[in-house]
Amino acid sequence: MKTIKIGLLGLGNIGTGTYKTLEMNRDEIESTLNSKVEIVKILERDTERDRGIAVPKEKFTSDPDEIFKDPEIDIVIELLGGIEPATSFILKAMENGKHVVTANKAAIAANYHKLMETAQANNVLFRFEASVGGGIPILGTLTGPLRANKFEEVLGILNGTTNYILTMMTKEGVDYDTALKDAQAQGFAEADPTADVEGIDAANKLTILMALMFDKYVAPEDIPTTGITQITKEKIEEARANNCKIKLIAHAKKLENGEIEYEVRPMHISETHPLANINKEFNAVFVKGNAVDDLMFYGKGAGPLPTGSAVLGDVIDIAKTIL
Amino acid sequence: MKTIKIGLLGLGNIGTGTYKTLEMNRDEIESTLNSKVEIVKILERDTERDRGIAVPKEKFTSDPDEIFKDPEIDIVIELLGGIEPATSFILKAMENGKHVVTANKAAIAANYHKLMETAQANNVLFRFEASVGGGIPILGTLTGPLRANKFEEVLGILNGTTNYILTMMTKEGVDYDTALKDAQAQGFAEADPTADVEGIDAANKLTILMALMFDKYVAPEDIPTTGITQITKEKIEEARANNCKIKLIAHAKKLENGEIEYEVRPMHISETHPLANINKEFNAVFVKGNAVDDLMFYGKGAGPLPTGSAVLGDVIDIAKTIL
Repeated sequence: MKTIKIGLLGLGNIGTGTYKTLEMNRDEIESTLNSKVEIVKILERDTERDRGIAVPKEKFTSDPDEIFKDPEIDIVIELLGGIEPATSFILKAMENGKHVVTANKAAIAANYHKLMETAQANNVLFRFEASVGGGIPILGTLTGPLRANKFEEVLGILNGTTNYILTMMTKEGVDYDTALKDAQAQGFAEADPTADVEGIDAANKLTILMALMFDKYVAPEDIPTTGITQITKEKIEEARANNCKIKLIAHAKKLENGEIEYEVRPMHISETHPLANINKEFNAVFVKGNAVDDLMFYGKGAGPLPTGSAVLGDVIDIAKTIL
Repeated sequence: MKTIKIGLLGLGNIGTGTYKTLEMNRDEIESTLNSKVEIVKILERDTERDRGIAVPKEKFTSDPDEIFKDPEIDIVIELLGGIEPATSFILKAMENGKHVVTANKAAIAANYHKLMETAQANNVLFRFEASVGGGIPILGTLTGPLRANKFEEVLGILNGTTNYILTMMTKEGVDYDTALKDAQAQGFAEADPTADVEGIDAANKLTILMALMFDKYVAPEDIPTTGITQITKEKIEEARANNCKIKLIAHAKKLENGEIEYEVRPMHISETHPLANINKEFNAVFVKGNAVDDLMFYGKGAGPLPTGSAVLGDVIDIAKTIL
């Protein structure tokens, strides 16, 4: 029986979640593939931290070339986060003939063309389901079962931190600062929440969605983006008076003339719209296709195991192709 | 450039929707595949009806063997509906080496093992995304991007007719008979609504979901099934008093001991649950996986173009594999 061998870059929260998901569901995954799956090397300096998993010490390395140059490794999973060195590592893995899976929206959004071209030039597969919507299988669906559609519009709640804050402000009537502190205490917001609350994370994800849905690349910094820091209790109340909720929405729409309009900003969403009831840290993506009409996908947009589910779904997809 | 040649069984509402979807989105589909796609023969007696599409007369045949025995046809799409002769036709297509796509939940639910075994024995692909949830890409997602999960539970609003009736009873306060007549007038219920209102259609779909999620086949007639004919205005009001809505739910759950419990019946769904806000003819499937946690998929569970979207998604999937 063949073994699919994986090199893992980064054993932080998401890396650990992916490792755990593989251990937890190894039987299902291996019987689906009729093949063994093994994470054989892990790029990670911190070999001592208690992660709740038993990782044999000899799997750790601090030299990425030990992964890129290992002829036995089929797939590299990049879970370092951030644009660099992640992008360089992904490119180097591809140049060494490795298929690549990543959850890294910032790296993909910043370097979309370069990454796609390098994958193609090296004849390797590149998958990034976990980069948008976490565990929600949106990208594989858009590029798979929905491919017989022309896409017309997407409205996404793509950032759990901001959705948690807006939900608290709406349901508990607290102000922005109180809701942010609560989100930080609950682990839904980072100490420096800038990338989330200013809409940057959502813009990265919209860049990826637009590239796949409309074959149009717009750099995240070119997407008109407004975060939620100016949302007050009064604005929440004003929305409520109009039977609406305020949600941070990543929006793109194909116009009659073929152009795409796009933005990330807090919007009034009617209480009868399916997106209005997406609360707390949940994410949702509402898409409209010219045949399928309205669709919505809802689920956990972050977290170690949901993200691990998406990462390993990509691994299975690649393994099916190369086995 | 290769042409994927298709034989279509049935040019009723769904067949026409599939034909229209292909005409409408031919450019996208063909450029995705780098191949042409053509429906070359259609099994249909009624060659005169105005369907709003221009079908060359020479494509019609009344002899199914003209499709099964045509060595040029790669894929057979079965859209006749009903268990027979659809099942026999699907089997015969497979025995003649054709890959098969169908939307026929009744035929699959009744003959699941026979169909899967015949596909395997003849080394052909068999896809049926449209059979559950219409346009919602649930089956491909369960067997694709979510494959790294152990599934724990599914709760589905899988029948648009009954959901429309229950929505009217809840929102407009009308009784069952009035809501049924409205659904019939709107084209959401058939003249003989038995299969829908008695939960038989939902049970067929639950059979298919359980087979894919839990690798367990339960014949639809062995699923404890209660329809909505006994739902009164009083029961709707009683649910509302408990902050719930009544929905016809197809439910299956894996128990601690590994057994699956399953049923189709009207259930009280809390107003805060995502399924509570699925209204009118829309369908939704709520699934729980041990890694991804809660997910919900929402969309149009029926209709010519949404179903056409799912059928052609399957065609693209097969074409990618055989090209």
